[in-house]
Amino acid sequence: ERRMDQKLIKEILEKVRAGTLSINQALEDLRDLPYEDIGYAKLDLHRSLRTGFPEVVFCQGKTAKQAAEIVKKLSEHHEKILATRVTKDVADTIYASVPEGKYYPEARMFVVNKTKKNNKRHDHGKYIMVLTGGTADIPVAEEAAVTAEAMGSRVERSYDVGVAGLHRLLAQKDKIIRANVLIVVAGMEGALPSIVGGMVSRPVIAVPTSIGYGASFGGLSALLAMLNSCASGVAVMNIDNGFGAGYFAHLVNK
Amino acid sequence: ERRMDQKLIKEILEKVRAGTLSINQALEDLRDLPYEDIGYAKLDLHRSLRTGFPEVVFCQGKTAKQAAEIVKKLSEHHEKILATRVTKDVADTIYASVPEGKYYPEARMFVVNKTKKNNKRHDHGKYIMVLTGGTADIPVAEEAAVTAEAMGSRVERSYDVGVAGLHRLLAQKDKIIRANVLIVVAGMEGALPSIVGGMVSRPVIAVPTSIGYGASFGGLSALLAMLNSCASGVAVMNIDNGFGAGYFAHLVNK
Amino acid sequence: ERRMDQKLIKEILEKVRAGTLSINQALEDLRDLPYEDIGYAKLDLHRSLRTGFPEVVFCQGKTAKQAAEIVKKLSEHHEKILATRVTKDVADTIYASVPEGKYYPEARMFVVNKTKKNNKRHDHGKYIMVLTGGTADIPVAEEAAVTAEAMGSRVERSYDVGVAGLHRLLAQKDKIIRANVLIVVAGMEGALPSIVGGMVSRPVIAVPTSIGYGASFGGLSALLAMLNSCASGVAVMNIDNGFGAGYFAHLVNK
Amino acid sequence: ERRMDQKLIKEILEKVRAGTLSINQALEDLRDLPYEDIGYAKLDLHRSLRTGFPEVVFCQGKTAKQAAEIVKKLSEHHEKILATRVTKDVADTIYASVPEGKYYPEARMFVVNKTKKNNKRHDHGKYIMVLTGGTADIPVAEEAAVTAEAMGSRVERSYDVGVAGLHRLLAQKDKIIRANVLIVVAGMEGALPSIVGGMVSRPVIAVPTSIGYGASFGGLSALLAMLNSCASGVAVMNIDNGFGAGYFAHLVNK
Amino acid sequence: ERRMDQKLIKEILEKVRAGTLSINQALEDLRDLPYEDIGYAKLDLHRSLRTGFPEVVFCQGKTAKQAAEIVKKLSEHHEKILATRVTKDVADTIYASVPEGKYYPEARMFVVNKTKKNNKRHDHGKYIMVLTGGTADIPVAEEAAVTAEAMGSRVERSYDVGVAGLHRLLAQKDKIIRANVLIVVAGMEGALPSIVGGMVSRPVIAVPTSIGYGASFGGLSALLAMLNSCASGVAVMNIDNGFGAGYFAHLVNK
Amino acid sequence: ERRMDQKLIKEILEKVRAGTLSINQALEDLRDLPYEDIGYAKLDLHRSLRTGFPEVVFCQGKTAKQAAEIVKKLSEHHEKILATRVTKDVADTIYASVPEGKYYPEARMFVVNKTKKNNKRHDHGKYIMVLTGGTADIPVAEEAAVTAEAMGSRVERSYDVGVAGLHRLLAQKDKIIRANVLIVVAGMEGALPSIVGGMVSRPVIAVPTSIGYGASFGGLSALLAMLNSCASGVAVMNIDNGFGAGYFAHLVNK
Amino acid sequence: ERRMDQKLIKEILEKVRAGTLSINQALEDLRDLPYEDIGYAKLDLHRSLRTGFPEVVFCQGKTAKQAAEIVKKLSEHHEKILATRVTKDVADTIYASVPEGKYYPEARMFVVNKTKKNNKRHDHGKYIMVLTGGTADIPVAEEAAVTAEAMGSRVERSYDVGVAGLHRLLAQKDKIIRANVLIVVAGMEGALPSIVGGMVSRPVIAVPTSIGYGASFGGLSALLAMLNSCASGVAVMNIDNGFGAGYFAHLVNK
Amino acid sequence: ERRMDQKLIKEILEKVRAGTLSINQALEDLRDLPYEDIGYAKLDLHRSLRTGFPEVVFCQGKTAKQAAEIVKKLSEHHEKILATRVTKDVADTIYASVPEGKYYPEARMFVVNKTKKNNKRHDHGKYIMVLTGGTADIPVAEEAAVTAEAMGSRVERSYDVGVAGLHRLLAQKDKIIRANVLIVVAGMEGALPSIVGGMVSRPVIAVPTSIGYGASFGGLSALLAMLNSCASGVAVMNIDNGFGAGYFAHLVNK
Repeated sequence: ERRMDQKLIKEILEKVRAGTLSINQALEDLRDLPYEDIGYAKLDLHRSLRTGFPEVVFCQGKTAKQAAEIVKKLSEHHEKILATRVTKDVADTIYASVPEGKYYPEARMFVVNKTKKNNKRHDHGKYIMVLTGGTADIPVAEEAAVTAEAMGSRVERSYDVGVAGLHRLLAQKDKIIRANVLIVVAGMEGALPSIVGGMVSRPVIAVPTSIGYGASFGGLSALLAMLNSCASGVAVMNIDNGFGAGYFAHLVNK
Repeated sequence: ERRMDQKLIKEILEKVRAGTLSINQALEDLRDLPYEDIGYAKLDLHRSLRTGFPEVVFCQGKTAKQAAEIVKKLSEHHEKILATRVTKDVADTIYASVPEGKYYPEARMFVVNKTKKNNKRHDHGKYIMVLTGGTADIPVAEEAAVTAEAMGSRVERSYDVGVAGLHRLLAQKDKIIRANVLIVVAGMEGALPSIVGGMVSRPVIAVPTSIGYGASFGGLSALLAMLNSCASGVAVMNIDNGFGAGYFAHLVNK
Repeated sequence: ERRMDQKLIKEILEKVRAGTLSINQALEDLRDLPYEDIGYAKLDLHRSLRTGFPEVVFCQGKTAKQAAEIVKKLSEHHEKILATRVTKDVADTIYASVPEGKYYPEARMFVVNKTKKNNKRHDHGKYIMVLTGGTADIPVAEEAAVTAEAMGSRVERSYDVGVAGLHRLLAQKDKIIRANVLIVVAGMEGALPSIVGGMVSRPVIAVPTSIGYGASFGGLSALLAMLNSCASGVAVMNIDNGFGAGYFAHLVNK
Repeated sequence: ERRMDQKLIKEILEKVRAGTLSINQALEDLRDLPYEDIGYAKLDLHRSLRTGFPEVVFCQGKTAKQAAEIVKKLSEHHEKILATRVTKDVADTIYASVPEGKYYPEARMFVVNKTKKNNKRHDHGKYIMVLTGGTADIPVAEEAAVTAEAMGSRVERSYDVGVAGLHRLLAQKDKIIRANVLIVVAGMEGALPSIVGGMVSRPVIAVPTSIGYGASFGGLSALLAMLNSCASGVAVMNIDNGFGAGYFAHLVNK
Repeated sequence: ERRMDQKLIKEILEKVRAGTLSINQALEDLRDLPYEDIGYAKLDLHRSLRTGFPEVVFCQGKTAKQAAEIVKKLSEHHEKILATRVTKDVADTIYASVPEGKYYPEARMFVVNKTKKNNKRHDHGKYIMVLTGGTADIPVAEEAAVTAEAMGSRVERSYDVGVAGLHRLLAQKDKIIRANVLIVVAGMEGALPSIVGGMVSRPVIAVPTSIGYGASFGGLSALLAMLNSCASGVAVMNIDNGFGAGYFAHLVNK
Repeated sequence: ERRMDQKLIKEILEKVRAGTLSINQALEDLRDLPYEDIGYAKLDLHRSLRTGFPEVVFCQGKTAKQAAEIVKKLSEHHEKILATRVTKDVADTIYASVPEGKYYPEARMFVVNKTKKNNKRHDHGKYIMVLTGGTADIPVAEEAAVTAEAMGSRVERSYDVGVAGLHRLLAQKDKIIRANVLIVVAGMEGALPSIVGGMVSRPVIAVPTSIGYGASFGGLSALLAMLNSCASGVAVMNIDNGFGAGYFAHLVNK
Repeated sequence: ERRMDQKLIKEILEKVRAGTLSINQALEDLRDLPYEDIGYAKLDLHRSLRTGFPEVVFCQGKTAKQAAEIVKKLSEHHEKILATRVTKDVADTIYASVPEGKYYPEARMFVVNKTKKNNKRHDHGKYIMVLTGGTADIPVAEEAAVTAEAMGSRVERSYDVGVAGLHRLLAQKDKIIRANVLIVVAGMEGALPSIVGGMVSRPVIAVPTSIGYGASFGGLSALLAMLNSCASGVAVMNIDNGFGAGYFAHLVNK
Repeated sequence: ERRMDQKLIKEILEKVRAGTLSINQALEDLRDLPYEDIGYAKLDLHRSLRTGFPEVVFCQGKTAKQAAEIVKKLSEHHEKILATRVTKDVADTIYASVPEGKYYPEARMFVVNKTKKNNKRHDHGKYIMVLTGGTADIPVAEEAAVTAEAMGSRVERSYDVGVAGLHRLLAQKDKIIRANVLIVVAGMEGALPSIVGGMVSRPVIAVPTSIGYGASFGGLSALLAMLNSCASGVAVMNIDNGFGAGYFAHLVNK
């Protein structure tokens, strides 16, 4: 479409040069050119600068067939596709039509990535550290990790280092302190990001999970705790939003 | 009243012995004795076993004059009175009529204690440790500490050891580990009890405070975090309920 | 690992003594020794003092196979394992691989306990009293009771003594008053802990349950009521957290 | 107004009888008679049956002058006026222009009642019992009591009989059991109505108060507890709605 | 048990009369008689005055077999049993063992009533009116109606007279005005009780239902609306608590 | 019924004219005519002016059989029926008995419309524009669109023009600006109505959807955002209430 | 600014015609013209079509001086200014510098309107009806009414016609039914819009107010009730948003 | 303290070299060195790497005197101090004792910065863009901007570019797109971060403000909207937490 717009403007300009169109009329014509298309072109231009950014499909609530069709269609025009919240069954169906993709069961993601070579350029020592409070938080953490890796970041993982056993966290201190950006995933009381935030001088992205019961109220408890973190340098994602955390972390890391 | 009941029963029994009252009628009379008074007597008996327990006056929302009158009146019959949420002005008014009491400004408490000697018996090495996340939590912590001390417990304090600066907490590790019971006071993300709970094998009483702003929602954030603590051995009090924590801790400690 | 650290430090010291390492360099080397490992050793030491404490597996959301594998693995190194939220089916699967364990259907727990003899030492008259408001609260109460028993406490039970029929509660008064610590489990209006708290001078651990409908909001009603208890000496656990209550009560009782 | 309507209809009918109005036109005229006026008349008729019912003025948020003007105006046409949430200052201003009224400071009410004699008819032994959990609940309880008395009911009061001291409540058992209807006012954990509901076989009207702090959330805690009462025969009013409770109780009692 | 107590007291009295027991010792023995049993006896006595009151079984969450066993057992000692939240399947199972009962499918109740004759005495013209806003509210309304009928009240029903079609409600005006007490059941905006409360001078019991979607939040919307009713004379039950409303209404009506 | 009322009044008038009924008696008879029926007649008259308005059946929670019976019955007396929240299975059952209707699977609606010709009159250029933020919002949007169309409005659709890709929205600017009224359907952050409201000077009806997860809390997030819209000219419907939006928009549009 | 853009484009076109700028370069230059300025021009054009629309100043939280300065400045370039939430003191200050404006104390608005003549064109019989449930809702209603009038709509008012006295509402039926659009303002249970919605076939704009106490939770109760209205044709504004309602109603009415 | 530890270790090492301490005993001594102090030293080391990081004082709730004392004391040992939530009065008091600091009234901050020269190193073209939806959001935005500037980042501001007037936002497009990291501050519906997030491929930090009324619930509305942003690359801070946003943004930017 962008080319069409340019063609239209070119025609107007050529008529102006040829003297077959008055300047006032040209002015009028240009103003009538659909505003939004020019806008679209510009945004598109900008968008084309975002090479390496994935298309994302949120599969929860979609049938296996629907998910497969969307991924298939996107795979014809895009280099990277991240399908999230993909159960094993849905993954099998997608894989049948998009065999170049790969399923990450722990992350519940199906990833198509045709640009793996280019990712190397990011692998210059800077890495994203992904931590979880418990083992039940791992699916959300893996969603974050796989997303960031698919976008080209190096990722280090350290799971089940929750606050009730501080020594496990402290045992990872060196790796934590050297990370360029950190994703901290926790449910229940959501305290881990505050502690990690107190240990580092790099941005910490906190992801509350819906892990817990009773007064965890589906992740509300962890969410509020993270928003109220007494540590500076902590920002918060929606409950269970591993993808968003991985995406944000990659933007910081790149 | 209890003596009255006993007198009534005694009279019945005497009439039975004297033969002036049939057993069936005595049975009837006994059943008609006010249930509640017997109950009161029994409960009272039990209550009298609770020597050393304070009478408590919650002064928030009371005028200085009202507070002073209540404390004055209680001081005539009780050995220990704890007045909580006492501002400086109210304390001055109470003190004018109850000069044997003492004001603790940080705890916002006015304490009358005529039994100080007896408290020594509790001071056998076992102590309650009171910790706070920040300096703003200190009034609640002091309310807990002064309450427990007034009841006869030994108390150790360590304030401003919040999770964002873990080293300050770890610097108190030895004192923390040797405590018999711990009170952990924190606002905002309320993470401190979870960490302390992971360090000790003694009961931890968590007290959320209304310290914070925005999504702390008047202490809700800290409250939920504490209820969802991933550490075993943590129980929770109402927001800002320092008195309750001190009382509970003393029950455990004694 | 702790031994490894000691070996490293020993080597440094030996080199210092041998004069092959300058004191400044030794100082440097010592500072480079991983902080966390020393910490880990210390904490571990402390942890080893906690003999008799169980490993806990929260089975809700785990498959029977996953739960069985975890319990199996833990049973190789630990004396006590408490698996909670275990359905009959999951219990059967665990039992197939860990036949030394035992299933408590009402508590929905699978318990492995190789140290039963030692528990006798706690059985010196002091007991935990577990009360419920209704019959529907019994599973949570049993989770508390079985946990405390597995840890070595003596437990007395009295169920269905809710506030709407006060006489049933009063009928248990003597047993209640003599308890060392009490666990009170209730859903709906959550009033029972307040009444029990008014009867005793020992710590009361209140456990709200998700029993109820409509404005009980999954236990929120009972939780708030318990946090606002007008009785002193009441602390609160998360909704349905029977395990936590049993654990906490044992810490107080031992 | 009702008489006006009747006059209009009468005129139509007379014209019909006189033959000066066709039946179809009369039909049309009748249909055009304002529906609402007939309705108003009918409802008014019904309203006139409600002799003894007060006009009510909610004074919170009104200036002393506004409140006084409204009460003054109402007092010209009505026998009973209940002004609620009246501070001392506002009461003084009202009293200046309506000296036949009386101020009840504890209830924060200003009452005009020109029909005191008639109230005697209700005083046939049946009474409303008003109970409170604590002393801070008394203003709401008095609002209920004064309302019911102004409407003609006999009221018995028993305050500060909260659940943490069961013996005080049991000491009132006989009076409680003989009440025709009960109003139970409580803040904090709101447990009292459940216990009273279990003691009686008469309707219990529960009134939560905003007394408390922290997780009482302005009376929400007590409100939820009362809605979830495990005792049958308990209905609930809005937080602090003493007037509503007194009004409802009188309707039941009369 | 009550008889046992009497036997014990009788023995004491006989020993006193026989001179084999001193009065002081008798006094002591009497005081040692379990407080609670006397209480139980007294309460039981009082309870026996409540003839006509049903035993209630809340069947939600119970298996058909459990429900049937409880109803069966209760039916051996009680005249009236109300089982609520009974699905068709559960009802069939109960009926198999308690064929004297009857199932009310709309009310989802199973009722055993061996005292039908006695109920006639209440049928003296006074009736409870049960209204619903919509057809979806009928199950809750029927639970209320069947409960009140089983307890001996006469009930009139008028369903689907919600506020969006005022004429349907007004068409029932006469029956509404003559009712002795009214139960108004509504979901969604919960406005009906306010309107009915404005039409009558009798107590209105408002029952919010969980009917609705989105911002009805499971009945919260209707519950809050009813608590805030601008009409005097409205008290509120828990969401979907038809049984409670019927019970309360009968207490008022009898 | 209206005719019945008129007949009754006519008879009274005829008797008056015939002199067989005194005016006073006629007055009495007229007053005895059921108030509500006159009201009903009037309202009915007004209702009859609402030609073209549909009867609505909310099918969620109804069995296929129940839904079919209601639609069948309504179809005998009404020209337009809108059944909402109709799954494919339910639609098949309805269709079997009401074959003149049509199922709209995306809108989950079954529509009976016997007056299609008349709708043309509304098709005079004015149209309702329906926009959605994402593809998952389409069912709610289609419910709105099909409702408005069934009532006689012209509808233009533009879906998946959410705020994260502003160019897609701007590409529809001309169609948006020319709309007479707009329905904007969005979940998650619910920002779209604010932006559309800033672009147009016509009424914008915002419909939050329950699309989202975590802190979207079933549509609460979008609902609050829409209520707080900084754009003037935005009014809000209940979560997922596409029908209400279509109905309201048609009232504005006609 | 728009003229500036046009001048820039004109220059480019003139250079093209003059041959001093290649078409490709012109294409480049045009693309570099700030996207947003073109957009601004276009939107501005559209905005200029909105003659008669006011500039709005929300004065809550502003000092009298700040408010006066903003209104003063706006009054130099705009024909209509609506300042909302204006206290008497603030109004006096504004009036001192903008004497052509007028203060509406009940609406708490200060209005500058230099185009009063033009408003007449809207006064063609169509009117907005503004209703309130109580007298305390009047400030919000007046804010709506004054806003709509300032924009050029005719407004009819009917206040204090709440649902608890249905006859007062019905007395206004004719005026209600003939309105073109209705604004219904109510606090507490928020039932009025549902009833009005059932009486008319025109759009009803519901405005919840923060009037009430206890479980009204600052207007939440009324807000939820209105969102859940069982009447079709009701849309909802934010709590206390009288201005928004008046604005929206005018958009519908014009 | 760190130096003390080193001295202790040095002494041990010297004794080892001198042969006056056995290696085993040295091992023992080293293990007895307070764990926490070593940890403290290490963390301190790491902390010392954080040159340029400020000490922060949250002044809300502190008296002018308290605030001044804290800032004074910190200013003796630290290069940068940020005091937040500083009213004019408090600022004057601080300034009196710390005249080297500067007050930023819009940001409500008092800043001491002795290292201004060093900040230049960050000013290499990369900048943080701070945007607000309205003018009322500016204090929070300024808190963010001043914080980031004090830490050494370059900041560009663009205020009052909210979603209801899209053209104002688009007019800043170029500056927005070139920013390295963005802070977007908005109250009410909180939509701005979603739109900005859709325009850029850099991290967006969303800050909800408590600006608004009614259903904004103190910023909850904006907070939820931001957490549910449909744009990738958005992370969220606590309500009104401008300081946190500025701090986080600087961590990303440096």
